[in-house]
Amino acid sequence: MPETMIALLTDFGCDDPWVGSVKSALLSIDPALRTVDITHSVPPHDVFAGAFTLFRAYRDFPPWSIYLCVVDPGVGGARRPIIVVAADRYFIGPDNGLFSFIYQHTEVDRVVAITADHYFRRPVSDTFHARDVFAPVAAWMAKGIESSKFGDPVEDYVKIPIPVDKVVGDTLIKGEVCALDRFGNLITNIRVETLAGFAEQSGKKRFKVLLAGQELPLVSGGYIQDRPLFALVNSSGLVEIAASSRSASEALGITSRGREVGVMAV
Amino acid sequence: MPETMIALLTDFGCDDPWVGSVKSALLSIDPALRTVDITHSVPPHDVFAGAFTLFRAYRDFPPWSIYLCVVDPGVGGARRPIIVVAADRYFIGPDNGLFSFIYQHTEVDRVVAITADHYFRRPVSDTFHARDVFAPVAAWMAKGIESSKFGDPVEDYVKIPIPVDKVVGDTLIKGEVCALDRFGNLITNIRVETLAGFAEQSGKKRFKVLLAGQELPLVSGGYIQDRPLFALVNSSGLVEIAASSRSASEALGITSRGREVGVMAV
Amino acid sequence: MPETMIALLTDFGCDDPWVGSVKSALLSIDPALRTVDITHSVPPHDVFAGAFTLFRAYRDFPPWSIYLCVVDPGVGGARRPIIVVAADRYFIGPDNGLFSFIYQHTEVDRVVAITADHYFRRPVSDTFHARDVFAPVAAWMAKGIESSKFGDPVEDYVKIPIPVDKVVGDTLIKGEVCALDRFGNLITNIRVETLAGFAEQSGKKRFKVLLAGQELPLVSGGYIQDRPLFALVNSSGLVEIAASSRSASEALGITSRGREVGVMAV
Repeated sequence: MPETMIALLTDFGCDDPWVGSVKSALLSIDPALRTVDITHSVPPHDVFAGAFTLFRAYRDFPPWSIYLCVVDPGVGGARRPIIVVAADRYFIGPDNGLFSFIYQHTEVDRVVAITADHYFRRPVSDTFHARDVFAPVAAWMAKGIESSKFGDPVEDYVKIPIPVDKVVGDTLIKGEVCALDRFGNLITNIRVETLAGFAEQSGKKRFKVLLAGQELPLVSGGYIQDRPLFALVNSSGLVEIAASSRSASEALGITSRGREVGVMAV
Repeated sequence: MPETMIALLTDFGCDDPWVGSVKSALLSIDPALRTVDITHSVPPHDVFAGAFTLFRAYRDFPPWSIYLCVVDPGVGGARRPIIVVAADRYFIGPDNGLFSFIYQHTEVDRVVAITADHYFRRPVSDTFHARDVFAPVAAWMAKGIESSKFGDPVEDYVKIPIPVDKVVGDTLIKGEVCALDRFGNLITNIRVETLAGFAEQSGKKRFKVLLAGQELPLVSGGYIQDRPLFALVNSSGLVEIAASSRSASEALGITSRGREVGVMAV
Repeated sequence: MPETMIALLTDFGCDDPWVGSVKSALLSIDPALRTVDITHSVPPHDVFAGAFTLFRAYRDFPPWSIYLCVVDPGVGGARRPIIVVAADRYFIGPDNGLFSFIYQHTEVDRVVAITADHYFRRPVSDTFHARDVFAPVAAWMAKGIESSKFGDPVEDYVKIPIPVDKVVGDTLIKGEVCALDRFGNLITNIRVETLAGFAEQSGKKRFKVLLAGQELPLVSGGYIQDRPLFALVNSSGLVEIAASSRSASEALGITSRGREVGVMAV
């Protein structure tokens, strides 16, 4: 039983048969492979949403896991297939910025442009590289083939613009709502590491979150709080705005990503 | 290959990455574990719906299966994590009433309040006990650790109010619509065991179901019937109202749970 | 670790617990079985949609895979359970036309009417043959029991009317939109084999697709094209109408299957 896990993230949905075809491609190479779905509900072609969802989830998989990530509007075109070795993990997918949060916030060991087409499934469809290129590469990597065997390192890999949490003028962390979850919580890009540095630097221990003209306390504990609206550090290590027994999205009238968020000491 | 199966039931949905993180937590402890999804579509925080869905499904898994069940609005608060040993099976989840149908209708061997935190994933997030508490406990139980190792038995576990089917005055079984399924069938809490006892007691063999002012025959066979509306005993051993080639929910204008149902002899 | 894969296709959805129960039935017979979901989102009782989705996907699974396919409005009635041996694969499900595209476009070796009820799960529910009949048969076949052990061959298996792509008068291939996918692409029943024969016969190499009063070029490559609307041969070997960076369904105002499609040489 191999130790390696293959985590899947796509915008394929589960109504069409594509996810099954990808898993069949994986298992055809190694019947003992273990796959785990992160999600297949990334909105169609929404590379940013895929990138952020991956960032939320990737630490929950053990070191040297393989992440097969496909949000790929340019499939069959000029964009390259790549392997990213970063954070002691392997990320496989299109070179279109899908790994931008990984590039920004982890140590990138190397990025390999996949060219070794003898590993591909034949024939390669121009519209389904997940099945014909990415899945075979992932399966062979899980079987122990080194990333260097699939192609040469590249430096000019694609980054999309992503908002990065930052301390501004010693008194404020600036961030942004980057996702809404099923419970209506608003998930920001403000990382616990940034918050910890800010706390140490300022010597403060209590913080408030500024959003949509409101000031919300940053609390510890879970979703049961005495306050109608509050912020906490969620299970991905990100600041999140939540509401007691209801949807923060509804309570605040915020239904899409992009809204500015600030954190200040109290 | 271990024989134990871990069945998962949550209100996490499949759009966010949480189910994958739970499975990663399980497989990180034992790569050979087999997991099966019951559903992740329990409406957010709807403990009753989760409890009833579990009741519909649990008998379809073999004895000594482990059920990892998380509908947990109080995560991170005072509610306890528990292991329920009942019906020759193990149920793991929050002590918030999620196992109320199991308590009501099966033999409960014991309920253990989980306190042995050396089994937990570290650090424990206040917002994701499924990953950090329940999954590790489930995986270690699947590896053979006995329930008594995780904490002490408790008697004051939480039960939520649930409707129980009952014979009233020798002529009527009273029940309630507890769920609607994908095909528009209305699933009640009236159990085949109650029906069998009623039949034996009354000496009758033909029954009708009373719902929304209508009298529907209780038939045998599948969904192909000569009648537009009828009732049958479904694959979970529960009385269900169905319609020929259409949705009973639509036909009757019943779109949510809670409606009273009666069964009488013909 | 067995080599055989069991691919699942149903109209059960993932909100109700049925898919989990089917997998439990499979794994109860062989804990080492590998299952892969094709989809469970076939619209309720839509045998045609199930048949076409299976046709889109089946080649993506290796020879001698087992396909457990259940779109079964007549469950518990007179329709037979069958095993179809075709295209070097095994298809298990109800005899209601669900395998019509397989019958039409592959070599059918034999169709067996399942009668050997000692393989069934007991008791057999009249409303859930997927769990009690089809899953056990699939699992026992995966363990090596030959199809002939489950019953006798039949010739009068059920075919539903399906549109078949055909060359009309040497100048036109006639087909039909048979499905819309998540990205709004319109998938037709026009097969690459038909197209190749037409090309050889006509000596032409460039083609256009006629749909809804429009003429669209049949291009090679992926979804990045210079044109707003175009057609291509998709990863299932079927002609598909797509749009650059948007939904062809929206662009053309076509939101359901059934629209006629033609292919002509340019």
